[in-house]
Amino acid sequence: MGWDDIMKEEVFYSKGMKYIKEDYPDLYKLSVDINEVAYTGKALDYKTQKLIALGITAAMSDDRAVEKQILSNMQEFGVTKDEIMDVLRVVMLIAGKPAFMKGVNILYSIEE
Amino acid sequence: MGWDDIMKEEVFYSKGMKYIKEDYPDLYKLSVDINEVAYTGKALDYKTQKLIALGITAAMSDDRAVEKQILSNMQEFGVTKDEIMDVLRVVMLIAGKPAFMKGVNILYSIEE
Amino acid sequence: MGWDDIMKEEVFYSKGMKYIKEDYPDLYKLSVDINEVAYTGKALDYKTQKLIALGITAAMSDDRAVEKQILSNMQEFGVTKDEIMDVLRVVMLIAGKPAFMKGVNILYSIEE
Amino acid sequence: MGWDDIMKEEVFYSKGMKYIKEDYPDLYKLSVDINEVAYTGKALDYKTQKLIALGITAAMSDDRAVEKQILSNMQEFGVTKDEIMDVLRVVMLIAGKPAFMKGVNILYSIEE
Amino acid sequence: MGWDDIMKEEVFYSKGMKYIKEDYPDLYKLSVDINEVAYTGKALDYKTQKLIALGITAAMSDDRAVEKQILSNMQEFGVTKDEIMDVLRVVMLIAGKPAFMKGVNILYSIEE
Amino acid sequence: MGWDDIMKEEVFYSKGMKYIKEDYPDLYKLSVDINEVAYTGKALDYKTQKLIALGITAAMSDDRAVEKQILSNMQEFGVTKDEIMDVLRVVMLIAGKPAFMKGVNILYSIEE
Repeated sequence: MGWDDIMKEEVFYSKGMKYIKEDYPDLYKLSVDINEVAYTGKALDYKTQKLIALGITAAMSDDRAVEKQILSNMQEFGVTKDEIMDVLRVVMLIAGKPAFMKGVNILYSIEE
Repeated sequence: MGWDDIMKEEVFYSKGMKYIKEDYPDLYKLSVDINEVAYTGKALDYKTQKLIALGITAAMSDDRAVEKQILSNMQEFGVTKDEIMDVLRVVMLIAGKPAFMKGVNILYSIEE
Repeated sequence: MGWDDIMKEEVFYSKGMKYIKEDYPDLYKLSVDINEVAYTGKALDYKTQKLIALGITAAMSDDRAVEKQILSNMQEFGVTKDEIMDVLRVVMLIAGKPAFMKGVNILYSIEE
Repeated sequence: MGWDDIMKEEVFYSKGMKYIKEDYPDLYKLSVDINEVAYTGKALDYKTQKLIALGITAAMSDDRAVEKQILSNMQEFGVTKDEIMDVLRVVMLIAGKPAFMKGVNILYSIEE
Repeated sequence: MGWDDIMKEEVFYSKGMKYIKEDYPDLYKLSVDINEVAYTGKALDYKTQKLIALGITAAMSDDRAVEKQILSNMQEFGVTKDEIMDVLRVVMLIAGKPAFMKGVNILYSIEE
Repeated sequence: MGWDDIMKEEVFYSKGMKYIKEDYPDLYKLSVDINEVAYTGKALDYKTQKLIALGITAAMSDDRAVEKQILSNMQEFGVTKDEIMDVLRVVMLIAGKPAFMKGVNILYSIEE
């Protein structure tokens, strides 16, 4: 998977949210609000919270959501490969090796 | 739930690991190794990794494991209530409101 | 488990939300908003949406959350035992027998 | 993803069940029975039960199973986009935003 | 937790199924059928299948269901502590350390 | 999906582990150790443990991990289609029909 595919993924994802904005404004507003309240930590900085979000996503969710989280961590916060790997170390401990390998494979496929 | 119950929980938990140490030394060794490799991040500090562990546990696991994670975050790293609440904010976003409320209730029951 | 225990559970739960209201007003507001947007369906009525919430909770969550959902379905909407059992039938199909039995046991322990 | 891909998915799915019918008749019979008992609600109608099934699937399962549930809801019961979105509202509340977005993206990719 | 509590758990569980038998005979019949078809393997013996059931339950479910599976493995098939620990080894690999520790603690609390 | 795609999957997967070996030798070593300790059962044989691993993976994980487990069961241990189906029977019982169908479809797509 190269950057082209990733960009296609991004478009795929953004489309869903764009449609929501047009068709279900109350859901769109909540969707923005929930992000804002979730990420406006009183004690932790935004980057730490995004790393936590990545950890939970890698433990629970499918490829697309994990890829999206890794990309947004890297692009918005300059999170490095080593930092993402440190998140994935915890994923191995708490959620097992298949969840860890899923994250590893997505990380390296983005890097290529 | 007060400190007495929590201490009983702690004993309940430690017993399992104590028995493993005696009966299955290879599993005990792995269990120590996996914690060490998971938490010896190359790029993130230990406290950030523990917060990530708490986030994943709150999203996925039952009451006991969540309580144990909150206690170890507070006691070993001086993590504050506000910092834990910042982790739980992300849990609400990624894993939904029941997982969030479970964490909130455990946090406040510990505090009392 | 009788009504006394259930009432204790209710108090246990409400406490968490009461504290959130005092300590984290932004989270409390979001928590109210997300319920409102989630349950203000444009096409389905509130009761149907609550039954869906029960189905998902029974498939995913621990005893306390399931019990809370069953109680709120029964008390706020007059949902009957047979209707709850019809939700649990779908839980068996989609999420397996342990999730189904968990729901059944909670339902009957409330009834007693 | 257009209708062509969806039809291919359908064929992919049906194949599995067709083979089961030939190779494991006892499993096939159970598979039919479990659907019948699950969906012959005593108190809720079939459509409500299918909406519950969609909610649980969207909260727990991968893309293919969610797509299949959305299609069967739409084709067999004339469930509308707004009704599906009302199910997904509950998914956001109970299972978090990634599960919600997965459902939204699949719904809109079918619509196109 | 000693044998008394476990027996109480057993009664708690059996009650649910007893009520189902009386109130929802179609569900009871399916519940028996699904066990029979699941465990009448064509190629694996019953004990191996029960060990697999324990593995999945330990990876996914709450304390009660895990305890019930361990008890039924031990009582019906004479499964030993070492064999259960071998299942839990795989649980650690695939589902992470909290799921493993949950199983370990239940196993040792039964033993006492 | 034919053998060509499966081989591509295999390469995709192996790449991740190859990179880990080069970039994070401590994680690679742990990754080998955890497999060794997990699968060196004291009481169950390796093949039985691999079948348990497949059961848990089919209940919890995405397509790629399930496919990888089925392939490694077949190629390393000569596990037959009937034996895999016996694992999937238990998956239906404990984890529900979508998880079962996911396994069935992957199994038959490999066979073709």
